[in-house]
Amino acid sequence: MIYFDVNATAPLCEAARTVWLAANAEHWANPSSPYASATRVRIYLNQAREHFSGLLGCSPELLVFNSGATEGNNSLFTYFRQIYPDKGRVAVSAVEHPCVLEAARYRFGERCDVVPVTSQGVLDLEVLEQKLRTGNYILVSVMAANNETGILQPWLEAMNLCREHGVPFHCDASQWVGKLPANRLGTCDFVTGCAHKFGGPKGVGFLKVAADYDGFKTLLGGEQEGGRRAGTEDYPGIAAMLAALKLRESQITPDFLKKATRARDAFQLSILERIPGVTVVGNSAPRLWNTLSLIMPTHENLRWVQLIDKRGFALSTGSACSTGKEGPSHVLAAMGLTPEAIRRVVRISGAWETKDSEWEALSDAFLSVNETLGKDRPLHY
Amino acid sequence: MIYFDVNATAPLCEAARTVWLAANAEHWANPSSPYASATRVRIYLNQAREHFSGLLGCSPELLVFNSGATEGNNSLFTYFRQIYPDKGRVAVSAVEHPCVLEAARYRFGERCDVVPVTSQGVLDLEVLEQKLRTGNYILVSVMAANNETGILQPWLEAMNLCREHGVPFHCDASQWVGKLPANRLGTCDFVTGCAHKFGGPKGVGFLKVAADYDGFKTLLGGEQEGGRRAGTEDYPGIAAMLAALKLRESQITPDFLKKATRARDAFQLSILERIPGVTVVGNSAPRLWNTLSLIMPTHENLRWVQLIDKRGFALSTGSACSTGKEGPSHVLAAMGLTPEAIRRVVRISGAWETKDSEWEALSDAFLSVNETLGKDRPLHY
Repeated sequence: MIYFDVNATAPLCEAARTVWLAANAEHWANPSSPYASATRVRIYLNQAREHFSGLLGCSPELLVFNSGATEGNNSLFTYFRQIYPDKGRVAVSAVEHPCVLEAARYRFGERCDVVPVTSQGVLDLEVLEQKLRTGNYILVSVMAANNETGILQPWLEAMNLCREHGVPFHCDASQWVGKLPANRLGTCDFVTGCAHKFGGPKGVGFLKVAADYDGFKTLLGGEQEGGRRAGTEDYPGIAAMLAALKLRESQITPDFLKKATRARDAFQLSILERIPGVTVVGNSAPRLWNTLSLIMPTHENLRWVQLIDKRGFALSTGSACSTGKEGPSHVLAAMGLTPEAIRRVVRISGAWETKDSEWEALSDAFLSVNETLGKDRPLHY
Repeated sequence: MIYFDVNATAPLCEAARTVWLAANAEHWANPSSPYASATRVRIYLNQAREHFSGLLGCSPELLVFNSGATEGNNSLFTYFRQIYPDKGRVAVSAVEHPCVLEAARYRFGERCDVVPVTSQGVLDLEVLEQKLRTGNYILVSVMAANNETGILQPWLEAMNLCREHGVPFHCDASQWVGKLPANRLGTCDFVTGCAHKFGGPKGVGFLKVAADYDGFKTLLGGEQEGGRRAGTEDYPGIAAMLAALKLRESQITPDFLKKATRARDAFQLSILERIPGVTVVGNSAPRLWNTLSLIMPTHENLRWVQLIDKRGFALSTGSACSTGKEGPSHVLAAMGLTPEAIRRVVRISGAWETKDSEWEALSDAFLSVNETLGKDRPLHY
């Protein structure tokens, strides 16, 4: 199988596997235990925290390791609701992952405002600024890169606007970290991410919490993570997450990004040429180098995905998290797509290792599926 | 190093390592993705859920996989606070792990009652029954086995009392699962546990949620775990946790339990004979076969632990989670020990593989440390 669904999850990279195994063989003691071999794990954990926070560009003591971005995002809105029980509004972009949108709406109800995106899927900074001018906001949350479309959000600009208005800024960077340099993310007040999106193990993630919020506490019952998240630290998982991020940061050179984008763009061009009627979602917006969201001219996306799967390629109908849910993608709806068009959208997300020849083979598979589908195409197309 | 701190964490067992590696090599796709290789992971995840719930003795759909017992315990009290925002009391035993005690107190404040234990560290069932008769309770939480002392709690009896009074019952079985047969735990309304206490990976655990509580939801933003905990499922971690539990369940035969208890008891006897003035905590209470909590006659526990560490043995001053915290153990205080005595308590917790000769070597190490300490013993001892 050739894998084009990295935005759903990435396979564990060799570097992470090696580090995880070594840590489980040598450094598996409980970092809170009172003997030398446990103290060593505590020291290594601190070193991992320093190294990881260095890649993000923030102080190590601001980093809380956790079980992933869903936990991080949920814990943030739960915390803000605790410190602002009855006043102040939160603003989130319309294209956030459901674990931001649902958590924000659940905790803040009608105190949660949704900031629209343009038809190109990019946050409307003017609307955000208008909202900030009202002085009602206690938190703004804008993702770094969208999981369904790969469209990059103006998170730095949004953060600067928030800073001007004295409003804390959260960035869900789950799809950015590992694919683009992480080193400016640490300037956000809150940042979430998770390891399995960039080749680390599943069940490991992080939340950066700004120094002003030292009352942040998610799980009670132990002094781990500076008292902010109790529970035995998963040092092997954390060390493996760090190893994966180090690998990705070394891979994503300007040269790599240029080449990877070119391969994706060549695929896009070839599909547009070979299959009439295909539309690219967010075509003129800045996008992740690995992601492409296509509106196919005919047939439901699941049919495309299944027929392409039979030809040996894994790709997706959209967010993996939304599978089994009713209703069309809120991300594409926010961009103005009709429910009918949304049902024809497929998401393709390549890996760091994806070869040009694999993009070309995927294009051939699309062509072949298009021909197969053409045979049972309804007359009105 | 010979490891006598299994109650803090256990090393990853070979079975769990093998399964984790295989799952990360073959079955790492996102179970929610729409292609065949992902569907296979979803099927395997369901099979793992069936197998694991079978070991616990409950229906598979009642099991929520999560990041560990600290998350499970916190999420339970958070949920009960949500459904009972302003009335109803919770009762927890005085010797619960801090992630139960603190979560219960934080969520319920003065609506949280603590049920005392006897001087032998066993829950006072009469007090529990008196409390239940008042009809004020919405939840009772009693652990299966204590982490600091190994003392077994009458959780089945407590559950039956609760059932008589129509009160849901929670059991934190983190120290029981893998050390004693798990198959009756599933009858409790809520059960928490975590993999790393029995040789599975860190960062993986479970919570059984009774069918009557189908509104239970901890993390929002996805349909995973029956909509009760969003976030990409850590199938490799879950499969490894299952492999570890299967191994332990096959190991803990009646014959094994007899032999292991005999080895621990022989060590206990030898220490009592060789070092005058040692007291065993909960000596006449039923205890885990691997655990021994000793009040040493002289010197702070940390001194003992450090000198024994130098002789190649890892053991603990108490709960690893309490390291770095001020104040003496609440578990030992609840049993009536003075703060001065508590400062002299060491915890020894062997593994499934601990040999008789290792217990004997540990006894020799204690004797040697006792001799070393004797030289700087204050005159008034």
